[in-house]
Parts: sequence; structure tokens; C-alpha cells
Amino acid sequence: MNAEIIAVGSELLLGQIANTNAQFLSQQLAEMGTDVYRHRVVGDNASRLLDEIKEAETRADLVILTGGLGPTKDDLTKETIAQHLQLELVSHGPSLQAIEQFFVSANRVMTENNRKQALVLNGSDVFINHHGMAPGMLVTHNQTVFVLLPGPPREMKPMFQNDVVPKLLTIFGGGKPVRSRVLRFFGIGEAELESRIEELIDAQHNPTIAPLASDGEVMLRLSAKHENKKEAISMLDHTEQLINDVVGEYVYGKNDETLLLKAVSLLKEQQKTIAVAESLTAGLFASQIASVPGAGSTLLGGVVCYTNKVKHHLVGVPQDILDTHGAVSEACAIELASRIRTRLKSDIGISFTGVAGPEPLEGQPPGTVWIGLSFSDREPFAISLKLTGERNYNRIRTVKHGFFQLIRLLEKETSSS
Amino acid sequence: MNAEIIAVGSELLLGQIANTNAQFLSQQLAEMGTDVYRHRVVGDNASRLLDEIKEAETRADLVILTGGLGPTKDDLTKETIAQHLQLELVSHGPSLQAIEQFFVSANRVMTENNRKQALVLNGSDVFINHHGMAPGMLVTHNQTVFVLLPGPPREMKPMFQNDVVPKLLTIFGGGKPVRSRVLRFFGIGEAELESRIEELIDAQHNPTIAPLASDGEVMLRLSAKHENKKEAISMLDHTEQLINDVVGEYVYGKNDETLLLKAVSLLKEQQKTIAVAESLTAGLFASQIASVPGAGSTLLGGVVCYTNKVKHHLVGVPQDILDTHGAVSEACAIELASRIRTRLKSDIGISFTGVAGPEPLEGQPPGTVWIGLSFSDREPFAISLKLTGERNYNRIRTVKHGFFQLIRLLEKETSSS
Repeated sequence: MNAEIIAVGSELLLGQIANTNAQFLSQQLAEMGTDVYRHRVVGDNASRLLDEIKEAETRADLVILTGGLGPTKDDLTKETIAQHLQLELVSHGPSLQAIEQFFVSANRVMTENNRKQALVLNGSDVFINHHGMAPGMLVTHNQTVFVLLPGPPREMKPMFQNDVVPKLLTIFGGGKPVRSRVLRFFGIGEAELESRIEELIDAQHNPTIAPLASDGEVMLRLSAKHENKKEAISMLDHTEQLINDVVGEYVYGKNDETLLLKAVSLLKEQQKTIAVAESLTAGLFASQIASVPGAGSTLLGGVVCYTNKVKHHLVGVPQDILDTHGAVSEACAIELASRIRTRLKSDIGISFTGVAGPEPLEGQPPGTVWIGLSFSDREPFAISLKLTGERNYNRIRTVKHGFFQLIRLLEKETSSS
Repeated sequence: MNAEIIAVGSELLLGQIANTNAQFLSQQLAEMGTDVYRHRVVGDNASRLLDEIKEAETRADLVILTGGLGPTKDDLTKETIAQHLQLELVSHGPSLQAIEQFFVSANRVMTENNRKQALVLNGSDVFINHHGMAPGMLVTHNQTVFVLLPGPPREMKPMFQNDVVPKLLTIFGGGKPVRSRVLRFFGIGEAELESRIEELIDAQHNPTIAPLASDGEVMLRLSAKHENKKEAISMLDHTEQLINDVVGEYVYGKNDETLLLKAVSLLKEQQKTIAVAESLTAGLFASQIASVPGAGSTLLGGVVCYTNKVKHHLVGVPQDILDTHGAVSEACAIELASRIRTRLKSDIGISFTGVAGPEPLEGQPPGTVWIGLSFSDREPFAISLKLTGERNYNRIRTVKHGFFQLIRLLEKETSSS
């Protein structure tokens, strides 16, 4: 079983937005064992859209279209599909009600063109939009399944997960499942990783081993094909062990377990609270922790200490440390981490100070960074980074290094207790 | 002149990353007046890649390929192009030197497979990679221009802007340019906006008016085709005026002037400093300001006050305000904004407190938010929002509303002074 994803919208071709929908759907389909062979993007143009639909239906079992279901004249996905499959568009009562309700609760006036959003393909399965207005649809034609989804990610994602996936599993029930597992690495480059496990990659066909790199992190995806779930899992376990024997020191997590999620879950498990003092990252680290639901049990808060005055007055870094060593220093990072910890009475204090760029600071080049760490049961310390990217790359990398350090330290706590 | 963008990499089809390269390149090409008709994504598979190349070259003047230039066995873009165009791959001295230098400066060992990255298409223009290793290439065949770029965005973007754009302008010099301008709206939905300017849209062909929606913001793109630059600009000015007459109150900026960039540029212009107190946003607002180069002249810092203790002890909100009104209240938002301003001696204090979700807080539903604002020359006040999204959507929307409020207030300062 294989799928293609067609995104519709001139805003994509004009570069106004990235096609994050295709990313999300590809992840979901991979988990279901469905191969995605192509993504395509076309503008709000009926004839080019029709070309893509015709090409896709000759090759794919499943064609997912996102976007073009809205109220405006540019939105023509369902009109194009209706014409191609010779299906009528009919008004869908529950969707119209939901749209009217949306305007009532938002205290806004419903304009006439919004009614168009309640038109659906005759005979299709209709999915009510619980986070917006345009409903989704599924219709089968000549053994190809077409799924039409709204463009905005926050409408599309829950609709796909809650309504479309169960429907697809029913329709395509018989496929031979692929189980996959992603091993996540930090601190090793893609080429070095592949070089070190070259023999393993060459020897393996099932499971396959595929290297992936993204945003300075490297991953390996192991994929096993087997009808028996237990057997597939044991094949993955075996391959994972072979990889760990060679490069296990760089592995920090699996699957969706990002550096952020791993760090927060260790904090929660160990019931530890954390306080932050952020200079160059200016709240990015704390904000990422707060993006995880339930973060309130571990994040107490902290200080965005962008200036030396704030470092001194609000965090309590002694003025002579700032005068003697400067803000971009090991000594300052240690003071920031220790003092924010004692000031907020947290178990852990972490600090970030450095030069994001593009300009040097205190005579130090962009990319010079210190991360300070203070735990109640050990001496505070700081590590240094020499980053080579642009301003926001350096800020993001700094935050990632912070989470990586935290994971390493928290894992030691687990293993020593 | 028209272009197609082909991204190569199974990590895209597996949903590991989004195709942000296509977004960036589309923006750049639109600015050059080049129409992009299609984006395509294929995996690390030579035969499917070859299909895409063959299809694209029959339609497009310019075919840009991103990804698949790396050191691993999966990387086969240039091999596929070489085979299709019957060109040899030859080692490129300066690229090999740059790659060797990269390993020396990173203090890492160069593995043999990295040499592969220095192979280039014989006879092509080669672009040295200043932010990574794999060089880019440009080669013309049967009147189609092929451009090969590395996949990582931080390598691809500067290479395209600095090296590829000038080359393309030389090659395609004669085209009829499109000038476009984006008007950015906040506080009005896409359907309502289009409905209110429907007559204008129907009447206009040059400039065209296209509505775009992204992440809760709505934009209109005006595009004028004219050989004379001055004339095109005056056509855009005229259309912009017609739109402003109807819905000008919702316009906050133009082109790349996001809410963030507009707010920061007003702060800088007016030489105002700002301090923040962030509860539900937990540093997101401050961190966004700090993402703009030179933010240090306006952002002093602030407090991430995730708990009531931190609101009281570090910001100075009176305990009886927290006991009587709760943290999610107008009174608390005003205290936070006023006290962070006086504590950090800034011109402006801004605060965010509310319920991100998914759980209610203090008996108030997710999406209940207060934004406090304190300026030295006026009474502090707070506005309330009722958001309807998920946790991180609510946090991001809150930050956007914060920037919008700031823009409105700063614009009043400008007009009253």
C-alpha cells in the first residue's frame, strides 16, 4: 500500500508557509506502515491540480489532498475532485450547523461565502471540523481512496488522527505492517555515524537502517517488516543492540523522544524542580519546557537576564564577577545557575550566557557560550561551547546542549540511586 | 519564466522534517518575478528522482533540486543528474580543501566517504559551501537551468542568496518582472476580509489581489506586472489605498514585517526599553524579541513567573492580589506589568498570565488570558483574550496579541508626538 500527498495553495508556492501538513501526514502514514512515495504542491489552479490528481490516482492506493476547502474563490479542491469523479456537491447539515455555531460563539457575523464550506462530495464520508469550519471527506473511486482535509494544521491534525486513521485502517486492513523505531543521537555527525556503523548498514536488509539528519541532530530509523508484531519488535531490539555496541554513548532517546521531552520526563520522574537564568537564549529554554503539558510541576520560573544590571540585581551575580570575568564567562555562568537555584529554592539551576551574534561581545566571537549547572548535591560547574552558526541557530543549539547536559546528569542520578 | 523545486530525501517522506527549503526558495523566486508552479518531494530513490527530473525539464525553465549531495550512500542527486545529462563527476579542488579545513577546525577526523562530497558535475558552475561541506552546482542543458543545492537550510540559504541569485539574474535577465507587496492584517478572519473587499478583488486583474492565511494571521498579496519599476510601484500604491479605505484599521504591516519585527522596530525607533513578566508564555515573548539582531538595545530582560511564589517574590506582586483575585486576573496582569517595569527601570512593562491548557486553572477554562501593559506616561491596564486552541496555539496567539497591542500603543506615541 502506498500513498501520495497533494497540498493545494498558492501560499505554499509563494513561500508564505511551509508544507508542514505533508510532514505530519507522512509521519502518521509511516507509523501505519504505509509508504509515501511523493509529496506534491500545486497552487490554486484547477487545471494543474487536476493533472496532479490524475497522475497520483494511476500510481497510489491513497491520495491525500490538503487545503483549498475554505470559503474563498481561490478554494477549489472539492470542486475539482467533484468534477473529475463526476460527483455532486451537496450541503451537509451538521457541518453547516457547526459553522453557524462557530460564528455565534466567536461573536462574529457569518458572511454568505462561509456557507460554501458546508458543501461536501455526494456519497462521501464526512468529517466534522472541530477546530475550524471546513469539513473533511473520504471517497473511494476505482480502488483509489481520496481523502480531502482542511489546510490549517490545527484543524487537519486532529481530524486525521481521530477520524481518518480509523477509517483507513478499516479499508486497508490487510497490509503487511512495517514497524519502525528511531534512535536519536546528539554530539556525532551524520557521516561519522554512518562510517562507524557501515558494516551493519551493508549487512542489514530487514530491518533496514536509514540515517536521518535534522537541525544538528542525527537519527537512525530501523524498519522491520513482519506480519507478527512480537517478531518485528524482537528484530528491532536485536538491531538496536548491535548499534548500541558501537555508538551507544551518543544515543539519548527513541522515536518522538526529543531532547526536550526526554529532559522534562526525567525531571518529572525524579520529581525535581528547575529554575533558569537566561541571557543569550532570553527565555527560549524555559519557554520550551512550558510547551510540554504539565510542565508546571517541574518549572518554577526564572530570569531573562539580558543585561548585566539584571544579572546583578535580579539574579544576584556579584558585581565584581561581572567586572573581572565579564558576563560571557565560566564564573558568571556558575553564579547565575547557583543563585537562581537558591533564589527560587529549586532542585536544579541552569544558566545560559554567551554571544549569539552577529556582533562580538566583550571581545569574544559569536558562538562563544557558557552553560552553568547547579544541583543541590554537587559542585556547580559550567561547560563551554564554540558554535559556528548564525544568531538564532546558535541560540537554538545552545538550548539543545542545555537539554542534553540535563539528560546526562539526570540519568546519572537515576543510575546512582 | 517559471520554476519547479524538487526536494530529495526520504527523511521528508517519512515526515522527519518539513520542506522549509521549498518555502524559502519560493519566496526568493517570487521576489525575482519567477513563477513557481510546483513543489515535489521524492525519496532517496534514483528511478523516482529521474522521473521527476524528466517531467520537470519538459515544463520548467529552471529546476532547483535540494538535498542528496551529502557523503552517505543514500545521497544520489548529482549521480542521477550526471547520468541523465551524460556528464562526468570530477573532483573539485577548492571544495575538497574546504571540506578538509572543516574537519581540522572542528577538531574531528575526516572519514573517507566525505571525499565524495567534493565531486561535481563536469562543466558546471560550482558554489563553495561556506556553512557546511557539500558544494552547490548550476548547469544548463537544452535550455533548462538545473541548480543543485545542499539540503540543510543553513547551508542552502546563504549559497542561494549570495551565489545562485546573481547567476540566475544574469542568465534570465530579459524577463518581465512582477512586483508584489503583502499587506498584513491582524484581528480579522480570511472570509470576512475577502467578503469586505470582494468588489475590489473582482475588478482587479493587474495588480492581482490574493488572500493568504497563516497561523491566525491574514495577508493580501498584491502583484503588479509592468516593465517599468516606477509604474509598477504606483499601481501597487493605488490598489493599497483602495484596500486601506475599506479595511485599513486591521492592517499592521507590510511584506516581511511580522508582528514581531514591526514591534521591535518601533521600540528601537522610539528608543524605548522593555521588561517582561511571563507566566503562561514562560519566556516565549522575550525570546522572540531576542531573536532579532540588535535586540539588546531595547530588551532589558524580565521574569518567567510560572508559579505564584515567583510572581510574589521576584516580581513583587502583593500576596493579597494573588489571594483575592488569583493569578489569572486583570489585577494580577496589571501588577506584573507595572512592577516589572519599575523593578527593571524600563520604559515599558508587559505581562502575560492565563490558562494555556489543557487543564483549567483557578476554575478558569483554557484560553483565558490577560495581557498587562504599563507605560511610564499612562495608567497601566490589561486586556483579556478568550482563545479556543490547544496549549501551544494559545501560548503563540497570546504572544502575537502582545505584539499587536504593543504596536498599536507605540503607533499612538508616534502620532501624538
